[in-house]
Amino acid sequence: MQVKLDRFKQLIAEITDLGRAEALLGWDQQTYMPRGSGEDRGNVLETVAGLSHRMFTSSEMGDLLAELAPYAESLDPESDDACLIKRTAHDHEKSTKVPTEWVAEFARVTTIGQMAWEEAKAANKFEVFRPHLEKVLAMRQAYANFFKPYDHIYDPLLDDFEPGMKTSEVQAIFNTLRPQQVQLLKEIAAKPVIDDSFLHIPYADQGQWDFGVDVITRFGYDWNRGRQDKAVHPFTTSFGIDDVRITTRFDPERAASALFSTMHEAGHAMYEQGVAKSLRRYPLANGASMAVHESQSRMWENLVGRSRAFWQFFYPKLLQQFPGQLAGVSQEQFYRGINKVEPSLIRVEADEATYNLHIMLRLELEIALLEGSLQVGDLPQVWNQKMGEYLGVVPAKDSEGVLQDVHWSGGMMGYFPTYALGNLVSAQLWEKMQQDIPNLDGQISQGKFDELLGWLRVNIHQHGAKFEPQVLIKRVTGTTIRPEPFMKYLRDKYSEIYNL
Amino acid sequence: MQVKLDRFKQLIAEITDLGRAEALLGWDQQTYMPRGSGEDRGNVLETVAGLSHRMFTSSEMGDLLAELAPYAESLDPESDDACLIKRTAHDHEKSTKVPTEWVAEFARVTTIGQMAWEEAKAANKFEVFRPHLEKVLAMRQAYANFFKPYDHIYDPLLDDFEPGMKTSEVQAIFNTLRPQQVQLLKEIAAKPVIDDSFLHIPYADQGQWDFGVDVITRFGYDWNRGRQDKAVHPFTTSFGIDDVRITTRFDPERAASALFSTMHEAGHAMYEQGVAKSLRRYPLANGASMAVHESQSRMWENLVGRSRAFWQFFYPKLLQQFPGQLAGVSQEQFYRGINKVEPSLIRVEADEATYNLHIMLRLELEIALLEGSLQVGDLPQVWNQKMGEYLGVVPAKDSEGVLQDVHWSGGMMGYFPTYALGNLVSAQLWEKMQQDIPNLDGQISQGKFDELLGWLRVNIHQHGAKFEPQVLIKRVTGTTIRPEPFMKYLRDKYSEIYNL
Repeated sequence: MQVKLDRFKQLIAEITDLGRAEALLGWDQQTYMPRGSGEDRGNVLETVAGLSHRMFTSSEMGDLLAELAPYAESLDPESDDACLIKRTAHDHEKSTKVPTEWVAEFARVTTIGQMAWEEAKAANKFEVFRPHLEKVLAMRQAYANFFKPYDHIYDPLLDDFEPGMKTSEVQAIFNTLRPQQVQLLKEIAAKPVIDDSFLHIPYADQGQWDFGVDVITRFGYDWNRGRQDKAVHPFTTSFGIDDVRITTRFDPERAASALFSTMHEAGHAMYEQGVAKSLRRYPLANGASMAVHESQSRMWENLVGRSRAFWQFFYPKLLQQFPGQLAGVSQEQFYRGINKVEPSLIRVEADEATYNLHIMLRLELEIALLEGSLQVGDLPQVWNQKMGEYLGVVPAKDSEGVLQDVHWSGGMMGYFPTYALGNLVSAQLWEKMQQDIPNLDGQISQGKFDELLGWLRVNIHQHGAKFEPQVLIKRVTGTTIRPEPFMKYLRDKYSEIYNL
Repeated sequence: MQVKLDRFKQLIAEITDLGRAEALLGWDQQTYMPRGSGEDRGNVLETVAGLSHRMFTSSEMGDLLAELAPYAESLDPESDDACLIKRTAHDHEKSTKVPTEWVAEFARVTTIGQMAWEEAKAANKFEVFRPHLEKVLAMRQAYANFFKPYDHIYDPLLDDFEPGMKTSEVQAIFNTLRPQQVQLLKEIAAKPVIDDSFLHIPYADQGQWDFGVDVITRFGYDWNRGRQDKAVHPFTTSFGIDDVRITTRFDPERAASALFSTMHEAGHAMYEQGVAKSLRRYPLANGASMAVHESQSRMWENLVGRSRAFWQFFYPKLLQQFPGQLAGVSQEQFYRGINKVEPSLIRVEADEATYNLHIMLRLELEIALLEGSLQVGDLPQVWNQKMGEYLGVVPAKDSEGVLQDVHWSGGMMGYFPTYALGNLVSAQLWEKMQQDIPNLDGQISQGKFDELLGWLRVNIHQHGAKFEPQVLIKRVTGTTIRPEPFMKYLRDKYSEIYNL
C-alpha cells in the first residue's frame, strides 16, 4: 500500500505543480505580458491545463484512488494522508462525471459569452447577451444533471466552491439574515447622511501604495514569500506556500478603494502563506473553500480595517501621508466616512450593511434560473424589482443592473453565495477570537497583529483544505456557519455610528 | 501519413508549449520571484521539465519519427516540415539517451544551485557554492557518459549548443586565433593608454534606461512583442515568437555596461522576433545555434554599437541625456573611450580585443573539470592563475573571479565557447553584408537600421532553427565558420584607433 500511496502522492504533486505553472502564466498575463502575445499564451495555457486534466482524470489516478479509499478509512481522519486521499477522491469523482465534450463546449460557449457580455454591457443591451446566457444556463443545467441524484439542482454547482454544503443550508441562513439586514438598512436610511467627500478627491498612487504596504506588513504579510504588483483587477494567486502574490489598482478619485482592496487581498494571501509546510506540494495547500477564503479577506478588510481600533493607530500615519487631502478631517469623521452606509446599484462598491443583499438577490435568481421557474428573458425585470425590494434603489439601465457582473457570462454559477457566507464566517471567527484573545482591540489600536494572525494560523490557516468548510468552522467555533454573529456585529457597529 | 504528421506536430507543439511555461518560470525566478520560494519553484520546474522530457522521449514520439523519416526525405529539404522532422529526430535521438530521472534531478539541483550561487557571489564565499557546483559537475559528467563512445567527454555538451561541432574543431579555431589576439594585445599595450574616465562616474539609472530604450527601438526591437526588466544577470528569453523579453542591470559607475548590454540582448531578441510565423509553435522558432544567436547580439553590440557611424548619430542624443557627465568630451574621445582595450576581470565588461581570452580560459577549465584533472575546490586558485597568464590581471576576490558568471550554477557547461564563435560569425556576416548593402555605414550614421535588420531577417532570422549552424553560415557567406574576418575586423579597427 505504501508503494501505491507514494505513487498517488507523486502524481497529485505533479498535477499541483502544473496548476502552479498555469497560475504563473495567468499572473504574468495580467501583470507584465506584452499585448501582442495573446496567441502564444493561449496555446501554452491550453496545453498545460489540458495535460493536467488528462493526468487527473487518468485511469491510473482512478485505480489508485479506488485502492487507497479503504486504506484512508484506517488512518487518523485528521491526518494529512487521509484528508488528501478523501479530498482528491471527491474532486476526481466530480471530474470523471463530466464528459470531455462538455468541457470543450463549455469553454467555447463561455468564451463567446464573455465577449457578448462585454458588448451588451457597453451598449446597455441585455438582448445582445440573452441568447448567450441561455446557452450558458442550459449547459450549467446539463452539468448539474451529470451528478444526479441530488437534493437540489444547485447543489453540484455550490459544491464546486463550498465542498459538502447544500443549497438548503444556504437558503436557511439567508432567509434568517435577509429580513434583519433589510430592517437595519431601513433604520439607517432614516438617519442623516454621513459626509465622506474627503474620500472622493485625488490621492497620489505612490502614497496609497506606500500606506497599503505599511499596513499589510504590520498585519504580517510575508514579503519574503510574496510580492505586490499592479493589475487591472486586484487578485491573489499562489505558486506555492512560499510564493503567494497579490495585485492592486488605483482609482485616483476613490482612495479607499485601493487601500481596502490591498488589505482584502493580503487577507487571502496570509491564509495561503500560513498553510502547514507538510501540505506544500498537494492541492490541500489551498483554502478550505471560497467562503473560508473570503472570511479571511473580509476579516482583515472590514473587522480589522474598518474598525475604530485600527484607525486609532493608523490615522495619524495616513494624515502624514496625505496632509492636504485630510486637512481638517478628524479621526472620528474619517472613521464614519469609511463606514458610510448607502444602498447602491453596484455590488463591488457596496458597504458592509448592504453587500449581502446584492448576493442574496443573485442567489435567488441563479436558483430560479436553474430550476426553470425564471426565464432568462424576464431576468432584467425581476432583477430591478428585487433591487427595489431589498435595497430601495432601482437601476435606470441594465448595464448598472443585471449586466454588471462578469460571472454568469463566464459560466460561474454557484460562486456568488460564497461572498456572503465569507462575511458570516468572518464575524463568527471574530466572536470566538474575542473570547480567546481578551485584549484584541487594544492590540489592534497599538498596531499589533501577531496574536490575531497567530490565532488564525493555528485555527484556520495551517489546515489548508484538509477539512470541509462546515467541519472546519464547527471545529473552531462549535457550530456550523450561522448568521447571528455577523448580524450582531453589524447592529452593534451601526447602532453606534448612526445612533440607532 | 497526414494523420501521423498531424499527430506528430500536435505532440511537438505541446512539448514546445511546456518549454515556454518552463521559460516563464525561469524568467520570473530571475526578475520578480520572492526570495523565499526556491523550494516550490524547484518542484514546479522539475515537474514541467520532467513531463516535457517524458513526452519527448515517449515511444509514441519515437514511433512517429521512425515512420515520418522516409516521408521527410520525399519533401523539399528546405520545407518547414522536412526541417522540423529532421531536427526533432536529431534531438530525440539525443534525449532518449538521457533518463527522465536525470532531467528532473538536474532541474532541482540547478534551481538550488543558482540560489546558492547568488548567495555565494553576494557574500564573496566560494565555499557556499562549491558543494552545489560539485553536484552540477558530477551530473554533467554523467550526462556526457550517456553518449559514449565520444571523441572527447566535452563533445556531447558542446553539441547541445552547437549541433554537429566537435571540441577538437573549436580548439583548432581557438589555437589559430589565440596567438593573433595575443600579438594584437601586445601591440596595443605598447601604445599610450586611452582616457575613458568619463565613463566611470555616476550616470543615473533612469537616463541609462531611457537612452537604451531609444537605441533598441530604433534598431527595430518590437515592444508590442517584448519587454525589458531588471535582473542580476542580463538575459533574453522567449515565450513564443510574439513574446521575447530582455533584462538589463545598472552599474552606476560603468555607464557603458548597461547600454551595450541592452543592445546585446536586443540583438538576441530581434533574432527570435524575426522567426517566420509558420514556425510559431515548433522548436524551430529558435536560433540555429548559440553561436549564431551570439553573432546577432555581438553584431548589434559591437559592429554596430561601437562603430563611429553609430555614434555620429547617437552621441548628440547621449550628450543631451548626460550633459554633465560628458561635458567637454568630444565625439572622437567618446568613440575611443568605449573602444579602449584594457585587460579586465569581468568577462561581460571585456572589450572586443580581450573578450575571447576570457572564453578560452573558461573552456579550458570546463574541459579540465569534466576530464577530472581539476577539482572544484581548486577552481578559484586555477582561475586566478590563468587570469594572470592570459590577461595579466588577477581577481582580489572570487566574486570578481570564478563566481562572476551564472552559467555553471545553472548547469550550463559547453556553452562558453559559443560566445567566441559568435564573435567570429558576426564579423563573417558583416563582411557579406557590406557587399550586399553598399551604403551600410551611411545608413547607420543616420540612425537607420531597417535595411540592416531586413537583411538579417531574410538571411538569418526567418529560418529559425531550420538549418544547422554551419549549413546556415555557409548558405549565407559561402564558407563555414572561420576566424579570418573577425581577426581582420579587429586589426583594422584597432590599427586606426591605436595607430598601430
